[in-house]
Amino acid sequence: MNTPLKGAAIIGQSGGPSAVINASAYGVIKTALENENITKVYGANHGIKGVLNDRLLIMDEEDPKELERLLYTPSSALGSCRYKIADPDVDDTDYKRILEIFKKYDVRYFFYNGGNDSMDTCAKVSRYMAKVGYDCMVMGVPKTIDNDLFGTDHCPGFSSAAKYIATSIMEVCRDAQVYDTGMITVIECMGRHAGWLTAAAQLANAMGEGPDFIYLPEVDFDMDKFVAEVSQRYKENGNCIVAVSEGIHYADGSFVSEAKTAATDGFGHAQLGGLAAMLANVMKEKTGAKVRGIELSLLQRCAAHCASGNDIQESFMSGKVAVESAVSGITGKMVGFECEREGGYVCKPKLFDLDEVANFEKKFPREWINKEGNGVLQPFVDYALPLIQGETPMVKENGLPRFCKLKKVFAE
Amino acid sequence: MNTPLKGAAIIGQSGGPSAVINASAYGVIKTALENENITKVYGANHGIKGVLNDRLLIMDEEDPKELERLLYTPSSALGSCRYKIADPDVDDTDYKRILEIFKKYDVRYFFYNGGNDSMDTCAKVSRYMAKVGYDCMVMGVPKTIDNDLFGTDHCPGFSSAAKYIATSIMEVCRDAQVYDTGMITVIECMGRHAGWLTAAAQLANAMGEGPDFIYLPEVDFDMDKFVAEVSQRYKENGNCIVAVSEGIHYADGSFVSEAKTAATDGFGHAQLGGLAAMLANVMKEKTGAKVRGIELSLLQRCAAHCASGNDIQESFMSGKVAVESAVSGITGKMVGFECEREGGYVCKPKLFDLDEVANFEKKFPREWINKEGNGVLQPFVDYALPLIQGETPMVKENGLPRFCKLKKVFAE
Repeated sequence: MNTPLKGAAIIGQSGGPSAVINASAYGVIKTALENENITKVYGANHGIKGVLNDRLLIMDEEDPKELERLLYTPSSALGSCRYKIADPDVDDTDYKRILEIFKKYDVRYFFYNGGNDSMDTCAKVSRYMAKVGYDCMVMGVPKTIDNDLFGTDHCPGFSSAAKYIATSIMEVCRDAQVYDTGMITVIECMGRHAGWLTAAAQLANAMGEGPDFIYLPEVDFDMDKFVAEVSQRYKENGNCIVAVSEGIHYADGSFVSEAKTAATDGFGHAQLGGLAAMLANVMKEKTGAKVRGIELSLLQRCAAHCASGNDIQESFMSGKVAVESAVSGITGKMVGFECEREGGYVCKPKLFDLDEVANFEKKFPREWINKEGNGVLQPFVDYALPLIQGETPMVKENGLPRFCKLKKVFAE
Repeated sequence: MNTPLKGAAIIGQSGGPSAVINASAYGVIKTALENENITKVYGANHGIKGVLNDRLLIMDEEDPKELERLLYTPSSALGSCRYKIADPDVDDTDYKRILEIFKKYDVRYFFYNGGNDSMDTCAKVSRYMAKVGYDCMVMGVPKTIDNDLFGTDHCPGFSSAAKYIATSIMEVCRDAQVYDTGMITVIECMGRHAGWLTAAAQLANAMGEGPDFIYLPEVDFDMDKFVAEVSQRYKENGNCIVAVSEGIHYADGSFVSEAKTAATDGFGHAQLGGLAAMLANVMKEKTGAKVRGIELSLLQRCAAHCASGNDIQESFMSGKVAVESAVSGITGKMVGFECEREGGYVCKPKLFDLDEVANFEKKFPREWINKEGNGVLQPFVDYALPLIQGETPMVKENGLPRFCKLKKVFAE
């Protein structure tokens, strides 16, 4: 083992929030604050933009007890951004600025907490620092409810979103079947390109209370087939509940949500409502049934009150291991997971090359979808069920969550 | 005290589901099963329609351990209906049939679990049985997330919905403020005529994480004022979050959700999306801001995983007291609540005349809304905060709820 670098650390968060992204950040912050080689811990306000704009929050100034609440606080407590950093070979302006800030604060450790794009940012910063000979350990801490990161068994954030989706769908299924008059219910889950989140509806089915059909973006959507399947089931049971991914698309690649079908609006006007409302309306016109479209919307990615206990622990672990690895001289890696499921679930941290992770999207396996393309199979349940185990130990105040409130003391 | 009537009991559920309507039903069922004067306990399948259609579930056949799960099972486990029973003076067909069924099963106790319309059904059945001289104790067991029942301090079901709404809005508020680029978020809550549910957003504000504005149906909606208020706040803070009742309406009484405004669709076509999407779109056109409309939809009335512990206990109590009162010879009453808040919250059962309760709607008090008509005041927080205390003791299986699964053995 090399002599550890001595200097400050920056942790930044990027991309869409999750229920547990702050648990990862807390893993980094707590471990870094306790490490003798790390002289100061900064939080970048709004991700890499916080570095570029010299907006750094001093984590050492925060109350440790308050910081602990990050474990149960959704969204990105440090602020997030969606900023695509340029290729340094094309335009190195941002990188020069980052280097300037790193030098200014003697930053020797950089941790970046996010999804595909964030791992790309991380990889580029890592390469640039190596190229210019500035000693800095760069580590990626994964987060994405979409569960589409390459290599890792699963992504922190997915498990909690899956738990919320399965729970909410179980509850909605009870509600949607309460009358004897029948209804067609369409529930829309997130997932623009990968069907992992929507597949979580199958966990509700594993409890005996799920949707009739599940449509993922990994299978081309066919409106006629959809109408026939849902109509048939409604005719048989007097009721039908379906879960759809926001990213379902026709064979030509066009999103169903953006299509202007004659059934929804003959004049071709863009629809205000989302996909669920649109599909519900199609079914209403075709069957005359009472319909309801439900979009789980932001709720599914920020429902800390229903987070998975395993997810919280694993998210913390990925942040902690990122710091420990960096201090031991490792750089340019993302801390993902390697899991065993036979003979009991075990989740261990595993390092992946940032270059390999960045900008790949891991699709939902076609072989976990049924032949008809309208359902999810048992191997997914076996995969996902361990991830959603355990409850959040969130302590409430006044019957409501009490989220972390940072003092937000800026450097300088 | 009279000699108690000896005979069978029927419990029926009616109207829209709630997270705890089954806790009330369980209060009735458990207490009735244990009472020596009640010879058999039937559940009417789909409310009064189950009586009319002779579809009665034998509760004595159910496993007591399984029945206990009703405390944590959302929606109406016996099945619900929306059936408006005729005035017996106009058409007594239904009443003759009900009497026939009551005689057939020797029913001497009738408990009906629901909202305004259900209490009306209850009152009519009670009067009819008295008129024809058939001895039967009829008791109303209240339920409505809308909290609009006359007399009672609050309604079972409201507290859990309020807890879910406040919790979810706290989480969404964190999510909606995560970027430095700003957004206008419109969150739509249920409440067609009364603003109680949407007012629950103020409980989030009491925790320091709520919406900027709250619009209830008790104040006429003014689109220009709304646009001005939201635009101004967005300009000041770079962000604005509002909560709106589905029932907000213009001064002429027309629902905003049904209005075809030029801003949303110049061609006057009905919009597929709900009110939240519509208002979000208006703000997008007016400000150019990124917007998001979120409809809490069915989730807010069936989220048993986030039910209020107090609500579960009180719901059970109202069912229990209904049976105890009936056995003691009381009829034609609803078991509501009388509460003390000073010096600690105490909730006691109180009987109300069904005739007084039926068909009245208790509006949200205007004096609990601010002068500007865009916010909710502290007296509501003092009123509602005790109601949402306590967590559900729901025991999960596989990390997910395990709802009550009735055998559903039908009589005959």
